[in-house]
Amino acid sequence: MSDHLITSLTNDTVKAVRALHMRKERETTGRFLAEGLKFIGEALDQGRAPVMLLVGQDARPHPILEQAKVETRKAGGQIITVTHAILEKISRRDNPQTVLGVFEQVYTPLEDIQPDSKPVWVALEQVRDPGNLGTIIRTADSAGCGGVILIGDCVDPYSVEAVRATMGSVFAVSITKASREEFVKWCKGWKGSIIGTRLDATHGYRDSPVQHPAIILMGNEQAGLTDELAATCDVNVKIPMRGRADSLNLAVATGIMVYSITDAAYGSGL
Amino acid sequence: MSDHLITSLTNDTVKAVRALHMRKERETTGRFLAEGLKFIGEALDQGRAPVMLLVGQDARPHPILEQAKVETRKAGGQIITVTHAILEKISRRDNPQTVLGVFEQVYTPLEDIQPDSKPVWVALEQVRDPGNLGTIIRTADSAGCGGVILIGDCVDPYSVEAVRATMGSVFAVSITKASREEFVKWCKGWKGSIIGTRLDATHGYRDSPVQHPAIILMGNEQAGLTDELAATCDVNVKIPMRGRADSLNLAVATGIMVYSITDAAYGSGL
Repeated sequence: MSDHLITSLTNDTVKAVRALHMRKERETTGRFLAEGLKFIGEALDQGRAPVMLLVGQDARPHPILEQAKVETRKAGGQIITVTHAILEKISRRDNPQTVLGVFEQVYTPLEDIQPDSKPVWVALEQVRDPGNLGTIIRTADSAGCGGVILIGDCVDPYSVEAVRATMGSVFAVSITKASREEFVKWCKGWKGSIIGTRLDATHGYRDSPVQHPAIILMGNEQAGLTDELAATCDVNVKIPMRGRADSLNLAVATGIMVYSITDAAYGSGL
Repeated sequence: MSDHLITSLTNDTVKAVRALHMRKERETTGRFLAEGLKFIGEALDQGRAPVMLLVGQDARPHPILEQAKVETRKAGGQIITVTHAILEKISRRDNPQTVLGVFEQVYTPLEDIQPDSKPVWVALEQVRDPGNLGTIIRTADSAGCGGVILIGDCVDPYSVEAVRATMGSVFAVSITKASREEFVKWCKGWKGSIIGTRLDATHGYRDSPVQHPAIILMGNEQAGLTDELAATCDVNVKIPMRGRADSLNLAVATGIMVYSITDAAYGSGL
């Protein structure tokens, strides 16, 4: 397809991209918005071309941008040049990125997960905060985890805010959705450790032997892990609380757990 | 002082409290806003009475609220009853907490820090994100650190957003401000380890011996630790990056470092 220039804020394509801020629109289209060359470069490195590439009129030449244009055309996607005002409108930001990409969402079905491909997997029950979810996806990538499994009614990993918080790791880590029942059933075939994190656990988080591949199971921000999922775990552990605070931020707690368990597999060296 | 009822959004007291969203007003008054009974209960437990207690007309009776009224009166503070609309206006939220407290900011001077009182201290250089800073204060409290030292031009720990992210730990952890020069000079008298975290470090974060009391030194979100501060450290370490991501979120990285170093002092058990 040929390249277009759009200047009108009420253009239908602009409206459709802006609508990706809404969960319903993302579910209907199966698409999401990723902002900036860092994200787009990460996508290309993973073989994921944008279905639509929006380039600001003021975007400076950059090798990643050129590559993105080539890959977008090759994959039959659209390349659109837009004004700065349109970038602001789409991003809902005063200082928008000058290149935006619309991508297809990808979910790995539970049955396609290959447990032995990585030593640690992260499962989250009903996580509520998009910033936490995006940060956890980034952490799972950093630590060398296989992927993130979202159990039950979780926030959308492809929301604009969650995607931003991944800093590009949304393209690197496999994401899976499952109901609680599906997850519990699937866990029965899991050969390694399933480790729950609960504030009422009686084991310290580093004090139990771990068999890899391991699943780290984290509950939600308010209520923690449900009894049903805690019962699915081989062991429930707690990160010690030594001060006045009664809990950690979910993304921080997950980071501490994930590095503890991945270090046991990879070693803590560089 | 007697209790007042305020219903006007343009009342001077309401305006003054709303102005605490602005850094300049917080610096001029030396005060900050903490929302909700959890925060106020935490303050009272630390012997900190509000200078002003704002109670929504729809606030339900609660022992902490009663105690807060008693302590506020005892300390010569004001108790004001306000409408739901005023709570919304002050909080900038649709579902505001029904009790708000205005408190005096407290900073511990660098020279008043007692290194041996706790095994680990956290120092942050030019941290930019209020959510990260608040989350780090919460983590420092959880892990049993002595306090958080803010070096150079950091975001305000008493901003409404940072305070919210502390979940009450803003009252439990000592907070210190220092210029880079003051900090570097003060470090010369430090007897334990000073551990910097840098992405270009060649030591793994768990692979160096630590002498307590230790200082964990973290750089800012974009640029990391400056060369000047890295040079002040006994050792610079890195959390291994095993995937595509090139860095961790600052609050997550700090959490991983803090628990690694506090576990070495306290043990990882419960």
